[in-house]
Amino acid sequence: MQRPNPRALNKAAAVALNEGAGGYAGRILAGELRAVARAISALEADPSFGRELSSALWRSTQRKPRLGITGSPGVGKSTLTNALIALLRGKGLRVGVVAVDPSSPFSGGAVLGDRVRMAVAEDDPGVYIRSVGSRGSLGGLSSATSGIVQVLEAFGMDIVLIETVGMGQTGFDIADISDTVVLVLSPESGDGVQAMKAGVMEIADIYAVNKADRPGAGALAAEISALLSPVEKPGEWQRPVLKLCAKQSEGAEDLLAAFNAHREFVSEFGRTEERRRHQTANEIKFIVEGRVKSILERSPQRDELLALARRVIAGELDANEAADRLLERIAAQI
Amino acid sequence: MQRPNPRALNKAAAVALNEGAGGYAGRILAGELRAVARAISALEADPSFGRELSSALWRSTQRKPRLGITGSPGVGKSTLTNALIALLRGKGLRVGVVAVDPSSPFSGGAVLGDRVRMAVAEDDPGVYIRSVGSRGSLGGLSSATSGIVQVLEAFGMDIVLIETVGMGQTGFDIADISDTVVLVLSPESGDGVQAMKAGVMEIADIYAVNKADRPGAGALAAEISALLSPVEKPGEWQRPVLKLCAKQSEGAEDLLAAFNAHREFVSEFGRTEERRRHQTANEIKFIVEGRVKSILERSPQRDELLALARRVIAGELDANEAADRLLERIAAQI
Repeated sequence: MQRPNPRALNKAAAVALNEGAGGYAGRILAGELRAVARAISALEADPSFGRELSSALWRSTQRKPRLGITGSPGVGKSTLTNALIALLRGKGLRVGVVAVDPSSPFSGGAVLGDRVRMAVAEDDPGVYIRSVGSRGSLGGLSSATSGIVQVLEAFGMDIVLIETVGMGQTGFDIADISDTVVLVLSPESGDGVQAMKAGVMEIADIYAVNKADRPGAGALAAEISALLSPVEKPGEWQRPVLKLCAKQSEGAEDLLAAFNAHREFVSEFGRTEERRRHQTANEIKFIVEGRVKSILERSPQRDELLALARRVIAGELDANEAADRLLERIAAQI
Repeated sequence: MQRPNPRALNKAAAVALNEGAGGYAGRILAGELRAVARAISALEADPSFGRELSSALWRSTQRKPRLGITGSPGVGKSTLTNALIALLRGKGLRVGVVAVDPSSPFSGGAVLGDRVRMAVAEDDPGVYIRSVGSRGSLGGLSSATSGIVQVLEAFGMDIVLIETVGMGQTGFDIADISDTVVLVLSPESGDGVQAMKAGVMEIADIYAVNKADRPGAGALAAEISALLSPVEKPGEWQRPVLKLCAKQSEGAEDLLAAFNAHREFVSEFGRTEERRRHQTANEIKFIVEGRVKSILERSPQRDELLALARRVIAGELDANEAADRLLERIAAQI
């Protein structure tokens, strides 16, 4: 397992940024580990590096199966990820992991390093785990996530696991970069029915009730099934409700089977293209929104924004009028 | 306590949308309850109604103390909100509550209505509770939240409580509409140190360890204090770490005192203006970003987006190039 030392990340980013994205695509495709670590650090630090790298990798990178793993804090996502890594390594597959999760032991490093005992050897070159900050958020993806997944695919990973807390509302989230999303719940998290009602669960393709040995697990699984069955339609994917004990690695094999079944279903029913088009449209939108945000951060617009805020506070105009003026300024910048 | 029937909301929105925002500002300021319910439904359904209403209310509305209550699911935010409502009603204050939380009992209605036994009578006109969907997200604010808070202030509430799960990454969140943010934690939620490390806790002005009678509460409070003290600076607000048992209403009075102390501190040290300017700038940015999103949803741009997605999938251009073209299209629309 390769896991970069957090303290070395800034240095790595600096090296890559200094060298430029141009040379990195070839080195990543050639399987050079150090290039992967540096390029990821650099694309996290500087979106324009990520953009250049993505353009360079894009034609040569084959998309690999991507499983999104989501759920509230404490339901056992990282334990499940760990069990899946062990299982996939046992099958000889190379596994890339992106953890977009402030509470993930994969991102905490020393703080929580021992919460999940890693299932693979420290020097196993078939596993690459990378954590991504989600900027103080409890949900959603950082703009770097998509680029990191691409780098891991270019590096030759056979499957990519993307672990994240909850779904974002940024319009681009785990469902947009994964082929299949599994929502992990636990009888103790107490967010089953509420989350379902709120539509959080709609996005999932597979439901996994973890900690299935605890009281309430059966009831939770039954509850989810009961909520799903009335909305199921013939010819649509029938979303399975699995029971797991990720800590004992029980059920990981079932989850993998469900993942494969879902991907097969989507491809057999000609839905792959539709899904991919929707995902790509969301990604383009997300890039556009990011550009607008970065235009707002730049200096003449930033000053204009603060001046407008002062005028709103002074009662000279309202926030909507201020937004109109700023929009005009942005349009001039595009 | 006034709580609209969810089934009546769509109808209410339709009535208000039909009548237009113009007449509603006066009726809300005059304290007409039905106008409040309908206007909120309408502004949730149609941002342009919200915009018009906000412009109409803006000069006549006095901003009231706003307390943001945030934390992971299950830590007891709603129980705390409930205890605060009882306490504030006891002091004769009128309380508005906005719950931006899919798992809130205030939003679940029948599903969870009995999880928290309401502390006030059903017909108490001094409490108005309104839940806001967060569009399948586990964090962040909906664009309607700010408008709802404004309506509650115009309606004459003396204090507004805003309850939300976590912090969003939309660039506009609970800290941008609240005077003070309390982060609620519980010894069982297991997200204390991790969240802190990830920067989620930075945004809070007050920390409240709920379920203080459970094992681990003292340790969690000590841990938070230990993490806070090295980053405290003289002349800055010293963020208190409170221990609560919201279920027994223990500590609600302390929290209220800390809320008042924080607002006094901010105002005494001349920070109110700076904070308000930052918040207003974020609100303007948020409106701008929302406008860009809505431009993207509209039909010529939407078609262009899908056409671009097809070309990206076909390998004719990459997502960044597609975003550039779409940006040009947007600029022409502003």
